[in-house]
Amino acid sequence: ANIVVLPGDGIGPEVTAAAVEVLRAVAARYGHDFHFREHLIGGAAIDATGSALPDDTLAAARDADAILLGAVGGPKWSDPNAKVRPEQGLLAIRKALGLYANLRPVKPHAATLGASPIKPHLLQGVDLIVVRELTGGIYFGDKTRSDSDASDLCRYSVAEIERVVRHAAALARTRSGKLTSVDKANVLETSRLWRDVTTRIVREEFPDVQLEHQLVDSMAMHLLARPREYDVIVTENMFGDILTDEASMLAGSLGLLPSASLGEGTNGPDGSAQPEHRIGLYEPIHGSAPDIAGKGVANPYAAILSAAMLLRHSLGLDAEAQCLELAVSRALDAGVFTADLTCDRTRAVGTRAVTEAVLEQLE
Amino acid sequence: ANIVVLPGDGIGPEVTAAAVEVLRAVAARYGHDFHFREHLIGGAAIDATGSALPDDTLAAARDADAILLGAVGGPKWSDPNAKVRPEQGLLAIRKALGLYANLRPVKPHAATLGASPIKPHLLQGVDLIVVRELTGGIYFGDKTRSDSDASDLCRYSVAEIERVVRHAAALARTRSGKLTSVDKANVLETSRLWRDVTTRIVREEFPDVQLEHQLVDSMAMHLLARPREYDVIVTENMFGDILTDEASMLAGSLGLLPSASLGEGTNGPDGSAQPEHRIGLYEPIHGSAPDIAGKGVANPYAAILSAAMLLRHSLGLDAEAQCLELAVSRALDAGVFTADLTCDRTRAVGTRAVTEAVLEQLE
Ligand SMILES: CC(C)[C@H](C(=O)O)[C@@H](O)C(=O)O
Ligand SMILES: CC(C)[C@H](C(=O)O)[C@@H](O)C(=O)O
Repeated sequence: ANIVVLPGDGIGPEVTAAAVEVLRAVAARYGHDFHFREHLIGGAAIDATGSALPDDTLAAARDADAILLGAVGGPKWSDPNAKVRPEQGLLAIRKALGLYANLRPVKPHAATLGASPIKPHLLQGVDLIVVRELTGGIYFGDKTRSDSDASDLCRYSVAEIERVVRHAAALARTRSGKLTSVDKANVLETSRLWRDVTTRIVREEFPDVQLEHQLVDSMAMHLLARPREYDVIVTENMFGDILTDEASMLAGSLGLLPSASLGEGTNGPDGSAQPEHRIGLYEPIHGSAPDIAGKGVANPYAAILSAAMLLRHSLGLDAEAQCLELAVSRALDAGVFTADLTCDRTRAVGTRAVTEAVLEQLE
Repeated sequence: ANIVVLPGDGIGPEVTAAAVEVLRAVAARYGHDFHFREHLIGGAAIDATGSALPDDTLAAARDADAILLGAVGGPKWSDPNAKVRPEQGLLAIRKALGLYANLRPVKPHAATLGASPIKPHLLQGVDLIVVRELTGGIYFGDKTRSDSDASDLCRYSVAEIERVVRHAAALARTRSGKLTSVDKANVLETSRLWRDVTTRIVREEFPDVQLEHQLVDSMAMHLLARPREYDVIVTENMFGDILTDEASMLAGSLGLLPSASLGEGTNGPDGSAQPEHRIGLYEPIHGSAPDIAGKGVANPYAAILSAAMLLRHSLGLDAEAQCLELAVSRALDAGVFTADLTCDRTRAVGTRAVTEAVLEQLE
């Protein structure tokens, strides 16, 4: 399999290096052939080429079986009014590859409940996954700016809503059968369309799935007050951005949360390879953390768990993915924590030690 | 003073009745003359007149010194595609009266920390206030809907941003001097304008205020992980809607959170009467809770605390406001809890008992 690696900026190179090392160990153990090729994206790409997503990066990504990304951005490129910005690389690759379904699982691990601001008894048994629409909405609508005002257009087509809802409903079917759709239908026209389309798709195509609608403001509360009650949550791009970062606090640290961004024809939600298998992009949901970059202390768990999602969703290697997730679980059980996972700073280890602990558990 | 009361739907009439009773007691004690007149809004108004904001309600509101609102909405009017919906009444009155600055203070009370999903040690000393822009953004932009798609326009003018930022910065000055502005400047053009205008206004007019910018997704995390670090938070309409509901979980229950929606010329943030004194609208941030309506169990604390904000911001009666807030504090200290504030259901009391406890503490 051809895997394109986009290290990006800040701690991106460190955490993707850890994930690649772990993937090599998986390949060796199971007898697979993985080829890794690195390309530029984000600030690193701007510095080298002037573009946040150079043509050869996009071309390589299109040819790949899967893409593993670190993080983009940093203080060097942080002027929001600059013409070229690192985030544009990320937004452009999502759009160009049609990666409309962004999967963000949140399953707090027993060993790290202490790192969450939420009371531990509320977190027991939490196992939810947000399916965020990733290539539409206000992120990609027309923008205007003048001396006196600015605007962003939020637009959704029926087809855009249908495909992401189908993905989420199919995923719900492989889990508890419960799907929660989040919108702001009491205010937004796009949300009223979202609610209508979601209701119809689930009724016509997934009658066995139990659908509930929530307003985004209520959801921001319920996610904290009763996180156990949710399983698959589907929502539009901007609401998904905010709610997944909020939900990350259930797991205690952003440093534990992987994500997968999938397009049409990717492997099914149960991991089975589809006839028309296409690429997915896998990235930790944390940012580039420039303040700790280059120090060897970055938490690579989220990147490693993103690699597990890559095995499952793009390569159809479900057993391998499970084995890797188990190794991570065991390393956490053994108390192998980076500084973001423990209050006891004297116990904290670095990127290398975490990687080795996971490799050891993989044996 | 003329106070227009808009009870609205669900538990709205019960909690506004409690707040009015408490305001009458304040008036008696301090020798003020408060006149209360009730008008229809929301679902109740739709049923009686076909409109969610009847003309005579709006006319009375324009003439009033202050408006006290309960809540709007309920299952009877819950079809998001209906032509007339209860929420329209709320949105229309905010817009018609130009109530652009929505103040939502969050200060967890020691006696109710147990009701929050957040670990108590993180909540000690939390005292923040969100200033949400309330009459612009995607809430009020042009909307379209066709068979194949829908759109909502998010628009902000420089002037709209300037006035709400000025309000927030002036408020920050009366507190710790720290102001956090929340946007999504890495994606939205309106957010880049928001950031530019905020930076300029604070630099030019409030050089003593310390301004920090946060992205909305990061803020959704920080609000939980380190709530003590925030004081005044200013943000646009939709982000404010989501973040204030999230922040409400710091206080344990929506039932404790008041809000004030202020327009030009209202009393200053420090409560001092301004020459051109105008109306404000005061409402609990909770909804109409139709499931418990009419049972006498609704929590009136948020409505009563909204009445305290009314005294302070629209009537310039700061001592009276403080006295009322102290009475609420004492009632909570005494363990007078509605069901939403305690896990021990056998201890829970109803609306009447809370009202009487507050009245008693007022003596
Ligand atoms: C970097 C930014 C553009 C991006 C987003 O908003 O989608 C990030 O926050 C994310 O969630 O992946
Ligand atoms: C009822 C609804 C329109 C309203 C809003 O979104 O502003 C409510 O959620 C609020 O926060 O006051």
